[in-house]
Amino acid sequence: MSVRIGLDVGGTKILAVAVDGESRVLASERRPTGWGADAVVDGIVAAIAAVAGGAQPDAVGIGVPGQIAPAGGVVRHALNLGIEQLDLAAAVARRTGIRPTVDNDVRAAAVGAAARMPDAGALAYLNLGTGVAAGIVVGGMPWRGARGAAGEIGHVSVDPAGPLCPCGQRGCIEALAGGANVAARWRRPADLPVAAVFDAADAGDPEAEAIRSDVVWGVAAAAQLLVLTADVDVVVLGGGVSHLGERLHAPVRAALRQAASGSTFLTSLDLARRVVAVPDGDPVGAVGAALLAVPAPGRVAAGV
Amino acid sequence: MSVRIGLDVGGTKILAVAVDGESRVLASERRPTGWGADAVVDGIVAAIAAVAGGAQPDAVGIGVPGQIAPAGGVVRHALNLGIEQLDLAAAVARRTGIRPTVDNDVRAAAVGAAARMPDAGALAYLNLGTGVAAGIVVGGMPWRGARGAAGEIGHVSVDPAGPLCPCGQRGCIEALAGGANVAARWRRPADLPVAAVFDAADAGDPEAEAIRSDVVWGVAAAAQLLVLTADVDVVVLGGGVSHLGERLHAPVRAALRQAASGSTFLTSLDLARRVVAVPDGDPVGAVGAALLAVPAPGRVAAGV
Repeated sequence: MSVRIGLDVGGTKILAVAVDGESRVLASERRPTGWGADAVVDGIVAAIAAVAGGAQPDAVGIGVPGQIAPAGGVVRHALNLGIEQLDLAAAVARRTGIRPTVDNDVRAAAVGAAARMPDAGALAYLNLGTGVAAGIVVGGMPWRGARGAAGEIGHVSVDPAGPLCPCGQRGCIEALAGGANVAARWRRPADLPVAAVFDAADAGDPEAEAIRSDVVWGVAAAAQLLVLTADVDVVVLGGGVSHLGERLHAPVRAALRQAASGSTFLTSLDLARRVVAVPDGDPVGAVGAALLAVPAPGRVAAGV
Repeated sequence: MSVRIGLDVGGTKILAVAVDGESRVLASERRPTGWGADAVVDGIVAAIAAVAGGAQPDAVGIGVPGQIAPAGGVVRHALNLGIEQLDLAAAVARRTGIRPTVDNDVRAAAVGAAARMPDAGALAYLNLGTGVAAGIVVGGMPWRGARGAAGEIGHVSVDPAGPLCPCGQRGCIEALAGGANVAARWRRPADLPVAAVFDAADAGDPEAEAIRSDVVWGVAAAAQLLVLTADVDVVVLGGGVSHLGERLHAPVRAALRQAASGSTFLTSLDLARRVVAVPDGDPVGAVGAALLAVPAPGRVAAGV
């Protein structure tokens, strides 16, 4: 049986899965992410060993944040992993004997989400985490664009009078809906700042209501521009902030319906119906990394 | 020699070209567009005959506004041609003996622009006319999206406090920069309302300055979201409003530089440099329609 291993390497945890040829999860492993290049590689190697169960996988794929040079396996500017630059593919190959395919984590999650929705001809995965970015998949394959940056919609401004973004613009999607910017505006300490803002808004705090309204519009605007620009069938919401579930998704759908209410064209697109959530606990990032993995033609000797 | 004919059918004129295998224009013909299905078909047939010069072309392509059913040749809702529904491919085939390939005019222009810029891996053609829409081309081929609507960015809202759009939203790109909406806001009669607004703004009229500022931001926002979402190398400006030339393009570039000035990421994208204009008089719409034309495997008997 063909077994692929996929890893989703995030700022706080590494999630690894082994999948079969039908993308079914055979084994999974979750462990905290270390800080810095050596610790990250150690964690990846241990997670691969845990899900491989002694067998040699046919291919290994790794999704990581940061910029990934095309086909190179070199990770740059993965700031929340403590990595400025690392040839991750080479480092893992030296330790495991198999050269992994390394790709951007959001793009991998988009491929994983598309595998769960084979009827969607084109799909966008909208990652709502510390930052906001999307991955676009057409016919099962990631759409990379000219320089591998397709879907980097976080710094599209959708409100010139909106909150200031660290990028210098006002009203970027990430300034409205990114977890880090929400936390900075809310200021009070909280483990889950976006959830804390939603709680306070439910309790009637006017500042929280304003921030919540911005989060909802930021997500709705992102979904709208992904459908209108890339004509995707479905926008799949994922990432930490999306764990708010219907508390976020219901007002996002309402905002999309409200925006469309005066337009036959927008109403015909039925954007609200196209926004769906990743099923809770579905490891689309790790599954997608496994699907993107290219089987190594020859194996590198382990331990070299 | 392989000769293809391409037509760009607009609300006021039909432009036809004959091109060789290297997309060089061998002959061209311009004539006014009639109103309604019969007049439009008459004009198309006459334009084809004029550029064909008695020879039978290998393929004919037609770019028209409105919704085109994929691979079908049926045009729907081409309101500025006076066409509610027309099987244009069948109508032209009956009259000329060759079945044309019919596609959306903006998509055809994007393919034509890409043929002029073979070094651009991915390109967006942003049509600034009565409305605003874009066509996206990757590797020379149009990117259609799931339902053929990729690039329909006119109704992405980029300013919730912006002018009301007939679609019911505020601050749509088309509400800001579409010729029809500019004319409606300016109210005074003018052959070229956007040029009239720019003239009045140059003369210090504060209302005209506000409208001009919206046009500039609408175009800049469109370019920004096309690059960030679709990661195109180049955004090519075309359509009637783009005939303003540097009077429009220079402030659009300045707005993009200003928006990027606080961000290493946005500055690295160098959006201002990526926004270029179609060379004046280059018939990219007709050339692109010729390039999209599929040679007919068998010919239909003329006059049937």
